[in-house]
Amino acid sequence: MELRKDPITRSWVVVGQREEPPLDAGTCPFCPDAQASQTLLRLPAEGPWRVRVMPHLAPLYRIEGEVGRAAEGIYDKMRSVGAHEIVVETPEHDLRLSRLPDDGIELVFEAYRRRIADLKRDLRFKYATALKNQGRLAAAEWTHSHSEIIATTFVPRRVLYELRASKAYFEEKERCVFCDIVRQEERAEVRVVDTQGDYVAFCPYASRVPFETWILPRKHNHQFEQPRAVARRKQFAALVGRMLRRLEQVSYAYHMVLHTSPNTQVKRAEPSEYWKTIADDYHWHLEIMPILPSGGRSYALKEVYFSGIMPEESAKRLRALEAGL
Amino acid sequence: MELRKDPITRSWVVVGQREEPPLDAGTCPFCPDAQASQTLLRLPAEGPWRVRVMPHLAPLYRIEGEVGRAAEGIYDKMRSVGAHEIVVETPEHDLRLSRLPDDGIELVFEAYRRRIADLKRDLRFKYATALKNQGRLAAAEWTHSHSEIIATTFVPRRVLYELRASKAYFEEKERCVFCDIVRQEERAEVRVVDTQGDYVAFCPYASRVPFETWILPRKHNHQFEQPRAVARRKQFAALVGRMLRRLEQVSYAYHMVLHTSPNTQVKRAEPSEYWKTIADDYHWHLEIMPILPSGGRSYALKEVYFSGIMPEESAKRLRALEAGL
Repeated sequence: MELRKDPITRSWVVVGQREEPPLDAGTCPFCPDAQASQTLLRLPAEGPWRVRVMPHLAPLYRIEGEVGRAAEGIYDKMRSVGAHEIVVETPEHDLRLSRLPDDGIELVFEAYRRRIADLKRDLRFKYATALKNQGRLAAAEWTHSHSEIIATTFVPRRVLYELRASKAYFEEKERCVFCDIVRQEERAEVRVVDTQGDYVAFCPYASRVPFETWILPRKHNHQFEQPRAVARRKQFAALVGRMLRRLEQVSYAYHMVLHTSPNTQVKRAEPSEYWKTIADDYHWHLEIMPILPSGGRSYALKEVYFSGIMPEESAKRLRALEAGL
Repeated sequence: MELRKDPITRSWVVVGQREEPPLDAGTCPFCPDAQASQTLLRLPAEGPWRVRVMPHLAPLYRIEGEVGRAAEGIYDKMRSVGAHEIVVETPEHDLRLSRLPDDGIELVFEAYRRRIADLKRDLRFKYATALKNQGRLAAAEWTHSHSEIIATTFVPRRVLYELRASKAYFEEKERCVFCDIVRQEERAEVRVVDTQGDYVAFCPYASRVPFETWILPRKHNHQFEQPRAVARRKQFAALVGRMLRRLEQVSYAYHMVLHTSPNTQVKRAEPSEYWKTIADDYHWHLEIMPILPSGGRSYALKEVYFSGIMPEESAKRLRALEAGL
């Protein structure tokens, strides 16, 4: 397994033969009675666990070793050093994230937060985040509800583009572009689906797929992994739960990706223009992309997305849906 | 239907309710005996047509009117003005592109060439290209073999990134990055699958999916739509045919996208830094992305591609496959 850089788009690709992941075959590797594997984190710390973090069973990235960045003629490559972990979201095999009580969802995001903060202490890692693929259409590999923590020695392309755009916006206006988006969405109301305390959920103006949803703190903050007061964590978990319960009524399968700032610790070792004003210009957010069944009205044409339902209509339909547990 | 710009990634998204495309329901809209619709181009010009270009039946873009670029608060939008056409690749309902004789494939690419050259005379269009989605997994909408011509009032994001990267490379080295890639691939031989005269087909170093293939002219050229000698057109068609017949043995479904230079005519009206040296630094190419059936070993994680088969292995397997008609 190695990382190769596309010299044209400058994005990194993981290539190589992956170990066949041990799939659900009679025994689930995430159930409490499964054969013990290493536990990286468990919540709560005492008593039976409700959320457990363990190494990925077929990792794309390995934690050991040097990055070994090297040229191959005009190309660049490096070893696929990084972290790849599984967050088991509940001990119950058949319970989805959306069906957990709010304090269960809160623990899942608390596990994300702690693992990301921990991984960012490793100065080899320029980025660390959490993501979740639910459903076969989203390429989920196990049925037991889980998400993934990934730390990489590079900042993924899309995040770099976000950083570039938000930095350019800040340089011009001395305001965070995400903060401006939140203010405009809250004023317009048409694309906002739900709010809870300090958090807001809306369908973005240029949604790539019908029912795409972003969940953001309404006040500026660039780092998801900062410790937060319990009241805020509860607000966020409640809002995520309601949104997932709505979204699952339009599509069972979805990708959920946390966008947080890159590892700003790295700036001491390796300064980058992006790191300088990041606390002012970047704003963490959670993106949820529902995957409509094949034949749905959504696809990408030549890297131009087409979304067959207007975000205003998506937001309206989502607002109308039952969000209770 | 309108175009909206994502303020974070700065890419355009088509949003809106699309007319339900008239799908295959007893009568195929592309067969010679279908109800006449407007013909934009037919080849050959005399006798029964072998390739026919017509307006798309459920277009994402409309040819009429002004672009109407406008602000919506901090957002940007414009009317989805553009061209969206169908290239019917053969009069025979059940014949795939890969099964056409070489001179049939040549006519299909000649149709692309003429339509792109024609659309680029319209200075509203900054980009024009051809693409093909084959198979349900690739979201093909009709079974009769066809491709699409699309002209847009913006340059798609991925092409912009290509232009940026190839321009930066040229500024540093005064060489085209694609030319350097071709030279390195031909020297190394491991990722080259096939060549024919002035053209080469290989699996790119940082392939995003197994069996991804690029077909390029070996000598520098930035514009696909330039008229070309018959001998060269025949070489290209023969190579594309052999590659498609190989690729269909690993996956029936694929996306095929032509990457050519933006509309350099526009520079007179609206200069752009990208246009200045484009004849020197950009290099047209055809990208083919096979779509492995769901459950395959390929997916994108958080915009980091993972390809479960090394490009060297993909190229080796493709070389070993039967390429005859």
